[in-house]
Amino acid sequence: MDEIRLIDVKEEILSSNKDLADQTRSRLAAAGVFMLNLMGSPGSGKTSLIIETIARLRDTYRVAVVETDIDSLVDSRRVAGEGVPAVQIRTGGSCHADAAMVDRALDELELAELDVVILENVGNLVCPAETDTGAMANAVILSVPEGDDKPLKYPLVFSMCDALVINMIDYLDMSDFDVELAQRRAKALNGVIEVFALSCRTGLHVEPFVAWLARQISASAENQR
Amino acid sequence: MDEIRLIDVKEEILSSNKDLADQTRSRLAAAGVFMLNLMGSPGSGKTSLIIETIARLRDTYRVAVVETDIDSLVDSRRVAGEGVPAVQIRTGGSCHADAAMVDRALDELELAELDVVILENVGNLVCPAETDTGAMANAVILSVPEGDDKPLKYPLVFSMCDALVINMIDYLDMSDFDVELAQRRAKALNGVIEVFALSCRTGLHVEPFVAWLARQISASAENQR
Repeated sequence: MDEIRLIDVKEEILSSNKDLADQTRSRLAAAGVFMLNLMGSPGSGKTSLIIETIARLRDTYRVAVVETDIDSLVDSRRVAGEGVPAVQIRTGGSCHADAAMVDRALDELELAELDVVILENVGNLVCPAETDTGAMANAVILSVPEGDDKPLKYPLVFSMCDALVINMIDYLDMSDFDVELAQRRAKALNGVIEVFALSCRTGLHVEPFVAWLARQISASAENQR
Repeated sequence: MDEIRLIDVKEEILSSNKDLADQTRSRLAAAGVFMLNLMGSPGSGKTSLIIETIARLRDTYRVAVVETDIDSLVDSRRVAGEGVPAVQIRTGGSCHADAAMVDRALDELELAELDVVILENVGNLVCPAETDTGAMANAVILSVPEGDDKPLKYPLVFSMCDALVINMIDYLDMSDFDVELAQRRAKALNGVIEVFALSCRTGLHVEPFVAWLARQISASAENQR
């Protein structure tokens, strides 16, 4: 087989995934549910941000979580401990969530009883950025120990996200991470990306991110009316 | 197209990659060159470990580095600053290095004048583990801020590596990372994996890892005789 046939296959898969993702967005919108796709490297703090966000959103919105993991229930157990509905997708080796996996996971939730679904994608800065999950908004976490050069090295995910969360700012003293520089590098790829610098461990500055998410939820609900 | 045809394509690619990787290993062995494939999440410290390793190996061995990046020269510039030959592979979006990319990169090096090539794979705990690069040994870095649960969540890379480097132990005081637990989880997947806990930032405990690498280099050279 030659290279060109491989590219055809990939394009066919991505195009069929996009169709299904569009259907998922329509299905969610019809049910009045907003979905956020949260991406980031392994250990950047995706589950921690979800838990901090649930704590601040749960009095206003009915939240559920879809966790994607290659082979464990660690994250869904953490989230279920918060008392919100949680569905675990085991990708069985796949490096990202695709629209079919997410659609199947949403079948397990009572969408009519929900306002928000947060999807935690596989820990990976590369492959998830290529695959539409059906979410209305996309966010990426970059943790301070990872370094401020990541927008240079993994540009696609920073280009396609609506929000960048710089996590672990409590580690800044031990690091040469430059928040302004990371922000400038992300904005050079994506002029409209919203940037939030916070610490999930201490809870510092989590509120502005949650307020942004609440604005996205309201704007999406307005569009449906 | 159906799922089964997709799987055929993937298997065909992986099998043809494996053949090329075996050829690369033979080519390196014939030239008396040892190659280490270094994997890890974005920002786990791959380039830093390479720089610390070069500093300790360069009096004994002639070292070169192959850097893999989706879209930047950041790492190869850092390594070239150490005065060793460095080749940058730009993967153009691909989430891992494959044998063809590495083979092409080795064409740019004078193998007859080298003892060791260190390959820095794309920052990703998933896809690089599936793809043989042609290296004689594989190592994965896990940084303390990423968390000690990563062997549960990304088992393949811990299963197929010869060494696990736990980096950023200078962050342990700020973290609930349990080195013993991470080690136990990795060993449950891979009883023979060698584990090194160190800090590239402070240089603490880097020597045992470098000594391990030197032993691999010697053993490989012995096998060639």
